[in-house]
Amino acid sequence: MAETFVIAQGGGPTTVINQTLVGAAIEIRRLYPAARVLGARHGVRGVRDGDFVILSDMDEQRLRRVAGIPGAALGSTRDKPDGAYCEQVLAGLKRAGADAFIYIGGNDTAGTQDILHQAAGGSIAMVHAPKTIDNDLVENDHTPGFISAAEYVAGTFAGVDLDFRSLPGIYVGIVMGRHAGFLTAASAAWRIDADTGPHLIYVPERAFSIDRFVDDMRRTLDRHRRCVVAVSEGVAEEDGRSLVEHLVPPDRLERDAHGNVKLAGGDLGQAFERALHERLPGKRARVDALGYMPRSHVASISPVDRQEAWSAGVKAVETAEQGSASVALQFEGGKTVFRAVPLAAVAGKTRHMPADFLDAAGTDLSPAGMAYFERLVPRKYDLVLPFV
Amino acid sequence: MAETFVIAQGGGPTTVINQTLVGAAIEIRRLYPAARVLGARHGVRGVRDGDFVILSDMDEQRLRRVAGIPGAALGSTRDKPDGAYCEQVLAGLKRAGADAFIYIGGNDTAGTQDILHQAAGGSIAMVHAPKTIDNDLVENDHTPGFISAAEYVAGTFAGVDLDFRSLPGIYVGIVMGRHAGFLTAASAAWRIDADTGPHLIYVPERAFSIDRFVDDMRRTLDRHRRCVVAVSEGVAEEDGRSLVEHLVPPDRLERDAHGNVKLAGGDLGQAFERALHERLPGKRARVDALGYMPRSHVASISPVDRQEAWSAGVKAVETAEQGSASVALQFEGGKTVFRAVPLAAVAGKTRHMPADFLDAAGTDLSPAGMAYFERLVPRKYDLVLPFV
Repeated sequence: MAETFVIAQGGGPTTVINQTLVGAAIEIRRLYPAARVLGARHGVRGVRDGDFVILSDMDEQRLRRVAGIPGAALGSTRDKPDGAYCEQVLAGLKRAGADAFIYIGGNDTAGTQDILHQAAGGSIAMVHAPKTIDNDLVENDHTPGFISAAEYVAGTFAGVDLDFRSLPGIYVGIVMGRHAGFLTAASAAWRIDADTGPHLIYVPERAFSIDRFVDDMRRTLDRHRRCVVAVSEGVAEEDGRSLVEHLVPPDRLERDAHGNVKLAGGDLGQAFERALHERLPGKRARVDALGYMPRSHVASISPVDRQEAWSAGVKAVETAEQGSASVALQFEGGKTVFRAVPLAAVAGKTRHMPADFLDAAGTDLSPAGMAYFERLVPRKYDLVLPFV
Repeated sequence: MAETFVIAQGGGPTTVINQTLVGAAIEIRRLYPAARVLGARHGVRGVRDGDFVILSDMDEQRLRRVAGIPGAALGSTRDKPDGAYCEQVLAGLKRAGADAFIYIGGNDTAGTQDILHQAAGGSIAMVHAPKTIDNDLVENDHTPGFISAAEYVAGTFAGVDLDFRSLPGIYVGIVMGRHAGFLTAASAAWRIDADTGPHLIYVPERAFSIDRFVDDMRRTLDRHRRCVVAVSEGVAEEDGRSLVEHLVPPDRLERDAHGNVKLAGGDLGQAFERALHERLPGKRARVDALGYMPRSHVASISPVDRQEAWSAGVKAVETAEQGSASVALQFEGGKTVFRAVPLAAVAGKTRHMPADFLDAAGTDLSPAGMAYFERLVPRKYDLVLPFV
């Protein structure tokens, strides 16, 4: 079948996104030894501009080593192409002689593939391979990249909680996630006992209130003598405006190319610190943004995640044989399976954390939520209680 | 010899501080099966208040598991006792019937032991066992806790640099360290090639200037199309005032119990973000504080560090036999050795990074500096160049 494959990577990288890239490239070699495999630099931008790496000429050993590094080895892009841009991308695919285009990314990437699919009218197979640390793709049980990031977050809070048992105080860790709280909730996965932090979890799925936050913290300090908090950078107040928009003066707000308010970094952290300083004076408090570490730290790459990401690439090649689709990672009969689903089913949609993953107060996981994370992120280190 | 040992932990915890605690406790059992071993909760405060855990009664298997967790298992303290406080601590040691007191910590801890030693007049052996992620103890080649933290920092920057090759921009990672830049400099340990970040390193040993910082960054962006920066939270301007004091309004500055300005967290990060936003407008920039993660993340605990920390505890027990001293980790004939040195040689002193560890500009390591980090923190992951 296909003689020329184009592959690209979009959106925020993960620690295993190159497994998908290389898994696909090597599967193509296996199935179609004569096929050309072009890697587009910086996503659709490279397709549009004809900026390709010829992966089919590359030494397999080098490819396999690249599979192991974090970051998008082909480069990525935040471009979300509109119709006109997609026409240029389609022209680029045609110039390259592409029979199939595999685009590895999240729901925006699936959206781009859906537009391209409509425009191409079936002449080129447009396949979306899933990737996101946010775990927010519908049709997926979880997504390649999530498990490693979740292990990083679980390990951060396990360590920080032990640190704060040593020297009690307040700790707030800000975790990436604009609309979905999965990654923040993973902070609870490696708790040792009922006294273990995070003691409070705030996700974008529930309305946030700074007053309630301070009350919650006071109660936690009374009970545990310390307070470890995990909060999604995307938490929003009742009115739907993100917390950072509430806390940061409008002239200081930064926006990205799509007009989205920049959520994390110092602004949100500083706003939290100010609130803690004013409302709980004299308490030792520390606010850290976990920042880019969950999606890039080399010490936290899960072998399971690596394997699933590779398989997603393999499945994308098989899927291309049948036409355009999104590859979805599902959980059936106690194991992970990959299915081809319509691009439109995934494109631009956000999967939120199910409501029943949280307890009634909305600041901790329910048993159903814990069960999900214990399945995906089983404890990896021998953690025991200290003497305090 | 000694029939009652008291052990305590002081200052900021590390991921291996419990190795030293348990290494000492188990060595005492081996040498003196009948000895009592009392663990004081929260450092000298527990000694003063008679708040002890009886470690000699504890199941060895439990002790060995506790050795593996981050944080100070006995609890820690930031108290820096003065003469009067030390009298109370000494009274506590006498009430407990202590023949030796092993205190695990940094240079403040050594200082406390020195005061206690003078006050006790030789009746109780006061031993300091080294611990600090700052690596700033004189007489030591490096300190238990440092290697794990350094690996964490090296791994952070290796991952972040690959992430920023995917999506170019400016990244500033703020690393703990008030007076010594070792941990920040470890960010360079796992570079792949001359294009790999961190492209700029700022440590407290060199005067910092925000103007020069912005110029350095502009030059780096021209050359590398991205700019990854590692900066110590303790960097100070020419006048000796820390950067955070320059950037943050006086009424917003927080101080600890010793009057030291609180360095990290949102304030410094936000100040950097503001400077970048104003002086390099339109550039994608991200500032993260690595925060508590280097000293507590469970995914980055070095087996070598673990072993050395354990040995420091063993050596502390042997040392107690001879009287008061500080255990120093030295490097001789190509290997790590432990020596007992006078408490006064270590107490309250700060070891800075040697001047020849930095290049002429002061923003990168020299070959001598690289050699030190390559010896201590050899690359642990197979990192290769991506396709962009």
